[in-house]
Amino acid sequence: MIKLYFSPGACSTASYLALEEAGADYSVERVNFAANQQQSPEYKAINPKARVPAMVTDRGVLTETPAILAFIAQSYPKAKLAPLDDAYAFAQMQAFNSYLCSTVHVAHAHKGRGTRWADDPAAIAEMKRKVPESVGACFDLIEKGFDGPWAMGGSFTVADPYLFTLSGWMEGDGLDLSRYPKVMDHRRRMQERPAVQKVMAAIAGS
Amino acid sequence: MIKLYFSPGACSTASYLALEEAGADYSVERVNFAANQQQSPEYKAINPKARVPAMVTDRGVLTETPAILAFIAQSYPKAKLAPLDDAYAFAQMQAFNSYLCSTVHVAHAHKGRGTRWADDPAAIAEMKRKVPESVGACFDLIEKGFDGPWAMGGSFTVADPYLFTLSGWMEGDGLDLSRYPKVMDHRRRMQERPAVQKVMAAIAGS
Repeated sequence: MIKLYFSPGACSTASYLALEEAGADYSVERVNFAANQQQSPEYKAINPKARVPAMVTDRGVLTETPAILAFIAQSYPKAKLAPLDDAYAFAQMQAFNSYLCSTVHVAHAHKGRGTRWADDPAAIAEMKRKVPESVGACFDLIEKGFDGPWAMGGSFTVADPYLFTLSGWMEGDGLDLSRYPKVMDHRRRMQERPAVQKVMAAIAGS
Repeated sequence: MIKLYFSPGACSTASYLALEEAGADYSVERVNFAANQQQSPEYKAINPKARVPAMVTDRGVLTETPAILAFIAQSYPKAKLAPLDDAYAFAQMQAFNSYLCSTVHVAHAHKGRGTRWADDPAAIAEMKRKVPESVGACFDLIEKGFDGPWAMGGSFTVADPYLFTLSGWMEGDGLDLSRYPKVMDHRRRMQERPAVQKVMAAIAGS
């Protein structure tokens, strides 16, 4: 059975939501970031990167949200969470997920994880200052390219839980939400889904 | 026919190499970064992100290296560039590519692209200073997890051109190459491949 290691508010929410949407048989375990549990020897034995998500499968541990999301879609094909029979459409979905991972999440991370790329407190403060602008530019691009109702158009895919997870950081990143009506509409549509309500309640109570 | 937009030395080399390894029918066009051509209206009509790679297909434009690499592997299955019939092994390959994209490349980008995340010159200089440490930590993890002879073990995959491309930045990032014997061995093995020799010569002459 699948076991997902997650932290409330982290990008692991995307994988959590995808597992629920897939109808997967899975369990979850919270990694306590406040206690720095992700750096414990026990957790680093599971994920040497000391981050979430990490997903334990019968075959071994998977990391990296885009890889986990595609794996969930491929492992539960009846849930139709990706265009599995169309390499081009699948690649478009992967490109969207890769952009969220390597550009949007990274821009956001300069707010709270600046020590990854600098030690000087002044530099870390300067990175933090620019987050509304850099994350804002990412969501400008997403908003402009959004056809809806879902991230990839007419069909719900694993890109939707991922977008929903990262768009949940927009207020905290100081963005003016009124600039992003399509992204906000997507958020509302996601919040109406039973799987999303179930998982968000479980995370809030974890 | 496929057309790849690339820039010498950029991460687009990974896609260029994968197309050649796949035996694809493709053409390439150099984007002149020195002339800031990636910001031209003509190029931004192809890729609004103003970056390389961008790959034009019969269906439309694909961006993001991990997505392009998986697409190439799926589109040319006879070349056996990914474990297409094993979702878990495919996910491990994707996790490796995602790590290269969102962590290794991002750490490297703080050397020359610091303006993405800060405006203050002192902060940009501080980011640059930390690159040997942050990129070094990434390659420590890759070196430790490397079973070889290829990135994913016994079989050559699209992860190999990607690793080869990013490991080519190690000297410029100030890393002590002697700390990474497995990654260096991988580099030498890649350089022996005819497809690699052909593409690297074409890029050098572009």
